[in-house]
Amino acid sequence: MTKGRLEAFSDGVIAIIITITILLIDLPDGDDMQALMGIMPLVGCYLISFILVGTNWVNHHHLLQVARQVDGRILWANLGYLFILSFMPVGTGWVGRSQFAMLPVRVYVIINLASALSYFLLEKAIIRASGSETLKAAVDESNKELWTFVVEGMALAASFVQGIHYVSCPLLVVAMAPWIVPDLRMKRVFEDAQRSHGQKRERNEKP
Amino acid sequence: MTKGRLEAFSDGVIAIIITITILLIDLPDGDDMQALMGIMPLVGCYLISFILVGTNWVNHHHLLQVARQVDGRILWANLGYLFILSFMPVGTGWVGRSQFAMLPVRVYVIINLASALSYFLLEKAIIRASGSETLKAAVDESNKELWTFVVEGMALAASFVQGIHYVSCPLLVVAMAPWIVPDLRMKRVFEDAQRSHGQKRERNEKP
Amino acid sequence: MTKGRLEAFSDGVIAIIITITILLIDLPDGDDMQALMGIMPLVGCYLISFILVGTNWVNHHHLLQVARQVDGRILWANLGYLFILSFMPVGTGWVGRSQFAMLPVRVYVIINLASALSYFLLEKAIIRASGSETLKAAVDESNKELWTFVVEGMALAASFVQGIHYVSCPLLVVAMAPWIVPDLRMKRVFEDAQRSHGQKRERNEKP
Amino acid sequence: MTKGRLEAFSDGVIAIIITITILLIDLPDGDDMQALMGIMPLVGCYLISFILVGTNWVNHHHLLQVARQVDGRILWANLGYLFILSFMPVGTGWVGRSQFAMLPVRVYVIINLASALSYFLLEKAIIRASGSETLKAAVDESNKELWTFVVEGMALAASFVQGIHYVSCPLLVVAMAPWIVPDLRMKRVFEDAQRSHGQKRERNEKP
Repeated sequence: MTKGRLEAFSDGVIAIIITITILLIDLPDGDDMQALMGIMPLVGCYLISFILVGTNWVNHHHLLQVARQVDGRILWANLGYLFILSFMPVGTGWVGRSQFAMLPVRVYVIINLASALSYFLLEKAIIRASGSETLKAAVDESNKELWTFVVEGMALAASFVQGIHYVSCPLLVVAMAPWIVPDLRMKRVFEDAQRSHGQKRERNEKP
Repeated sequence: MTKGRLEAFSDGVIAIIITITILLIDLPDGDDMQALMGIMPLVGCYLISFILVGTNWVNHHHLLQVARQVDGRILWANLGYLFILSFMPVGTGWVGRSQFAMLPVRVYVIINLASALSYFLLEKAIIRASGSETLKAAVDESNKELWTFVVEGMALAASFVQGIHYVSCPLLVVAMAPWIVPDLRMKRVFEDAQRSHGQKRERNEKP
Repeated sequence: MTKGRLEAFSDGVIAIIITITILLIDLPDGDDMQALMGIMPLVGCYLISFILVGTNWVNHHHLLQVARQVDGRILWANLGYLFILSFMPVGTGWVGRSQFAMLPVRVYVIINLASALSYFLLEKAIIRASGSETLKAAVDESNKELWTFVVEGMALAASFVQGIHYVSCPLLVVAMAPWIVPDLRMKRVFEDAQRSHGQKRERNEKP
Repeated sequence: MTKGRLEAFSDGVIAIIITITILLIDLPDGDDMQALMGIMPLVGCYLISFILVGTNWVNHHHLLQVARQVDGRILWANLGYLFILSFMPVGTGWVGRSQFAMLPVRVYVIINLASALSYFLLEKAIIRASGSETLKAAVDESNKELWTFVVEGMALAASFVQGIHYVSCPLLVVAMAPWIVPDLRMKRVFEDAQRSHGQKRERNEKP
């Protein structure tokens, strides 16, 4: 029950984050093609943010399914994650309006790195609360998190080199690529948990 | 369960899209009738957008009811659909502030065409996942989609002719007219699916 | 199920309407008391709007509970109601910024009259769909709707007289006063419906 | 059921409140570090508001779980609470833009005091409706509310002394500190209620 409300609240916040970014796109300043072209960098950056936040939502959704119950640590790890994610609209707006200038791009990359980090902490809090060895093993053996951190680190490095820094935003999509397909590890863990739960119940019911 | 959360998330995003458009209506610039009249084109365009997004919501709702389970393809087709739809507020604001100038109207028509197309792709993804022959037949036999594409194509053409382009926005409502009444095909398919599901279960239960 | 999603969607839209009004309150233009006082008319008008939209939400909630199923007419009556209600933020912003000038107040009263009217139409659509004689009788016998229309009519008249027009906004709260306590008629009808439903079932079960 | 919808509506409003604050953060006025530093006071104040509203959400969530049914008093106490809370974005924006000037900080503290007070009233309304002696005793014996009021009073006093007033906003977080861990009293009362409910049922079932 508590978990249901946590999911609903998170969904609400993420739905708002993903949608209000559009409010940061200024209306074109005039009725001609030039005015329309003027907002295209923002539209491009909005597309990237939509993909990134969308991917975050899909995976957050799978991660929470694994959690059996919600303790204070998970609650606040989740709020921290949402806090970081809520900087995406401002970051997007700044990158777009500055036409992908270096500092805005760098800040945008840092927001994404911080959100990956806070997701990682949420994952740890859920592993700790569920005490699931399978989940821990699944997260440890795979290297999705590693891939994301390495590629986002490259995006950060690129944002320090004038000219190369245009690659940073596309690189962020590459960093999230392995997450675009919903996280199958979670599904496996989930099924595993249900199976072991069934076995435990069986054992208890034995006389 | 996954489907329930997809519906809730989509509803949230669509509810925000339909409502934040109002934030793009500038407050009248003064306290007199002339100032009020100044925002009337925006109010008119907001009415059209509200009808269009409302119709989209009603049909999206029926379409998702048919889906039995949600795979990655449906998830991303749905996110793509929401992405396109999220341009409605900006499109509305631009058309209204420019007092229905040609280019903004054209862009607004294109947003609607793209949203119809992405709805069509979502429909296809759901047909594919459910493997429902009835749904496929129902979509194929009817020509609601065809009507929408043809009339929206006419709206696009009209937006290229000065003077005639005022017809484009009302034409979009005409294009959506067959969808305003909730999609009965879906209801039929839904009932059909439940019936066939029942038969299958019966067959399985037979010794 | 359809009804649940209609409720969730309506709640979402009303929650957004009630909350985004705060975005129309400009930040005080300076750090001193005079700047703070400058936004007080807006804060006052926001308080009135919050009470009015809150009352609308509470009653909408009770009204939908009576509906047994949702047809196209109810769906669109509901969307029409939400459309009218969505003008509350802009109306509030205009009244507040103009420091309760006559025309903005008049428009604000008209928005409230229109929302009362659209609520009335939604009520009719639900009576029609449920075929409930009790609900029809309950709505007919009481005169809550009449009170609201009469007092809001007075508020409209007052908004045409310079000086007296300051009474209009408080009058709107008076007009909604009988609705502030949740609508007990609905509760009675709801219980009645459940009882008669039970009897019908009983009758059917008799051999 | 009514309670479920109240929770959903409150969650929606709080999710919007927590998220739209980000819209009040102006985009940096330029692409350089100085422009970025210019919005840092706002970001700092946003962090504080996020913690405060987040804590409010977590506790509101636990408080509503105790409520057995929702009467008109609870409904309106809840709306009053949400009304106060909805001033957090504007308060945050004003404090941040004024770079923590004295009057904005003072107003921000008052918003927090008022929200604590309205939470207290909601607590009382729920105690009254549930008639729970345990809940009443739990609230009376603990002194979380007292701590909050005293520390927020100190924050208010500090906001009147130039220089010291920078302490006020951090003090608000200190005032909420005992609430950051979800309210265990509520959990105890909840379990107690379920136990006594079980006993009552048992007693009734005895011949």
